[in-house]
Order: sequence, then structure tokens, then C-alpha cells
Amino acid sequence: MRRSTAADQIKELILARGLQAGDPLPTESELCDTLDVSRSSVREAIRSLATLDIVEVRHGHGTFVGRMSLDPMVQALVFRGALSHDDNLQALRDVVEIRQALDVAMAEQVVASLQGQENAELHRLADEMVDQADQGNPFLEADRAFHTTLLAGLDNQLAGQLVGAFWDVHTAVLPRLGLALPADLRKTARSHRDILVAAEAGDVEAFCTAVGQHYEPLARALKRAH
Amino acid sequence: MRRSTAADQIKELILARGLQAGDPLPTESELCDTLDVSRSSVREAIRSLATLDIVEVRHGHGTFVGRMSLDPMVQALVFRGALSHDDNLQALRDVVEIRQALDVAMAEQVVASLQGQENAELHRLADEMVDQADQGNPFLEADRAFHTTLLAGLDNQLAGQLVGAFWDVHTAVLPRLGLALPADLRKTARSHRDILVAAEAGDVEAFCTAVGQHYEPLARALKRAH
Repeated sequence: MRRSTAADQIKELILARGLQAGDPLPTESELCDTLDVSRSSVREAIRSLATLDIVEVRHGHGTFVGRMSLDPMVQALVFRGALSHDDNLQALRDVVEIRQALDVAMAEQVVASLQGQENAELHRLADEMVDQADQGNPFLEADRAFHTTLLAGLDNQLAGQLVGAFWDVHTAVLPRLGLALPADLRKTARSHRDILVAAEAGDVEAFCTAVGQHYEPLARALKRAH
Repeated sequence: MRRSTAADQIKELILARGLQAGDPLPTESELCDTLDVSRSSVREAIRSLATLDIVEVRHGHGTFVGRMSLDPMVQALVFRGALSHDDNLQALRDVVEIRQALDVAMAEQVVASLQGQENAELHRLADEMVDQADQGNPFLEADRAFHTTLLAGLDNQLAGQLVGAFWDVHTAVLPRLGLALPADLRKTARSHRDILVAAEAGDVEAFCTAVGQHYEPLARALKRAH
């Protein structure tokens, strides 16, 4: 397993030198010398680490320590959703269920972080979604920003990243199903405002109810399509 | 972006031909001809897809459609945990919090799937953990099997895979922290039995309490270390 060894060696080097996300890696030649491996092994290892977002190759600028985001998982899950053609609906249902479970599981912490304040950014996003829905437009960017910003105040950064990742999977898989949800767009848009108002009022129960209403149009469409 | 194009083309080919996990891919030469790209582009794309577990290269046997597991995410998160040396504890705390949130979020469904039965496999695993803990031994394999088997009866396959993935991250990051938890091993082992008994009794509240007790020794150790 020559390849995994070179990748492991590069990971060890990152750790040993205490490099952080965004820091430059040694050049390809330096890596060959330091790790005593061939140039092709280094290249292969760098590519594999780049696919995992453990390093980032900026062409013309060099290679840097990556963000280790959840994007690789998103890619694999989106493709899995696309692949299971007999069972596309089940794949989406699984993802939506995980999204809702995470939202509910984080409810107490989210409410605690927003309670008693007025979060201007979240209100702007909620208003934008309602405006767009009223005009019959989609509101994907505001939607994603709303769900990740909702968790931005938590200590737990991973929670927000997971919520964003499953949002990405959901949004990528949904159009392949050809479900039409026009009348429901407005209901979904408005439920974001309810979620926010409940959090700011410190009301965990109302928050969870609004989360349920947020997913309800989609859950119903999935059930109808079944 | 020549590389992503070849990988995208291979993904499209998998979809167009309706290939499923485990099905063989066309040979490298066939892919070059079909997709009209160079051999080096095909190789690079295959490597990148293999890193994401979208294809699987079995040396001497060929290339197959992969399982699209969450292993790439686990690798990235484990490395992120190792990397954040100042904040290793926070990385583990985040992961443990997500594990507990998923367990609680899935409680109703898990209880519904186990209620009124006696699951021999889960009892065997719980007994094994208690036996090992009483002898002062670790019980990692039984522990992972218990947590994933607990969700095996759900419709939602993704939930079990996520629980397994975060178990993997947790278990890989923990030893780097040098936390000693000897006295707590037995408590953790026994809490699995409580989780199972509560589920079989159809008691969601007792299930959630037992889940809390399961994570309590670790949560305490993390707090102490802080």
C-alpha cells in the first residue's frame, strides 16, 4: 500500500509541524526529499488528500492545508441518492429525516443561544424567503444561510457543518425526483420565521413545532409520491 | 477543470447504465474510448472517485461501483480532530454531542422497532461488554456493533451509518487525548443494557435517560480535562 503510506506521511508531517488550515505545505520536491518517496507517489497522495479536503491545491500558488469540510461526504451521498433510482424517494426521505432529527436535537442549544435577542441577519434571511416565495421564486441561498446561521452561535461547529452538509445533499437530490411543490413554497418560507420567533422567545416547544411544520410540506409530497 | 469532468463523466456513465454498488465498471481502455479522454485523466478520475468510495479498485480484479460509505468523512474528521491540538477536547466534545443528539433524535423510532421483542444479538453484545468491563478489558468491537445494530431495524439506513461514522471518529480521536477512564468503563458497559431494556419495554423516556448515562462518564472526563 505505497499510496496510503505517502498520504499518511504527509498527514503526519502536517501534525508534526503543527500546520493549520490554510498554511502552505512544503513543495512537491521538498516532500519527495523529506518523506523519501517518488514524485509520482507524492502527487498521487496529494490528489487523494485533496479529494478529502485535507489539503487544497491552488493552481499556480501551491498546496495548502485544507478545511477538512464535509464536502466529500456530500458528494458521496448525493451520488448515492442519484444512484438508487428505484429508491430515490427513500434516499431523500432518509436525508430529510436526519435533517429534522438534527434540528430537533439541537433545539435547546439553539434556543439558548438566541433567546432574548433579535438576530438581524436571521430576520433578514427569513424576510427574504417570504418575499421570494410570495413572488413564486425559489430561495435556496437564503434557506441554506438561515439553517447554518441558526447554529452559528453554538460552541459545536460540527453541528452547523452537518446541517449545511445535509441541506446540500437534500437540495441536490430533490430536483431529480421531479416533485412539484409550488403551493407549499410559501408555507415552508413562513415556517422559518416561526422557528426564529420561537427561538428568540425562548420557547423550545414552539421551536420544535415550527421545525415540524417546516418539513411537513416536503414530508407530505414524499408520502404522496410513494 | 479536466479532472472533475472525467470524474463527472464516469459518474454519469454509472447512472446512465444503471450500475449498482458492486457492479464492475468498464475497463480503463473502454472508459478512454467511451468518454473520449486520455488514459491519465481516467486514472486520475478513478483515484479521486475511489477516495470518495464512489468506485472501488480491487487490484488484479478491476474497478467496481463502490459503497459510497461515510468513511471519507470519518477520515477527514479524525484528521481534523488530530490537527486541532490546542482544541482536541473541543473536537471530541463536538463529536460526542452529535452522537448523543442522534441517539436521542432516533429514540422514538428505535424504541418502536424493538418494543415487545427480545433481541438476542443486542443482548449478547450488551452482556459481552459487561463481562469485558468486569475483567477490566476494553470492548470496542461489541460497542460499535451494539450502537449500529440498535438502528438496524429502522427504515433509515443513513441513520445507522452516521451513528457508526461518529463512533469511528470518537474512537480514533479519544486515545490522542490520554484521558483515563478505568472506573467508568463498567458504568458505560452497563448503560448499554439499560438502553436495550428500555427499548424493549417501549419506554422512550427511560431510553433517553440511559443514553444520557451512557455518555455521562465521558462528558465528565471531558469537563474535568477542560
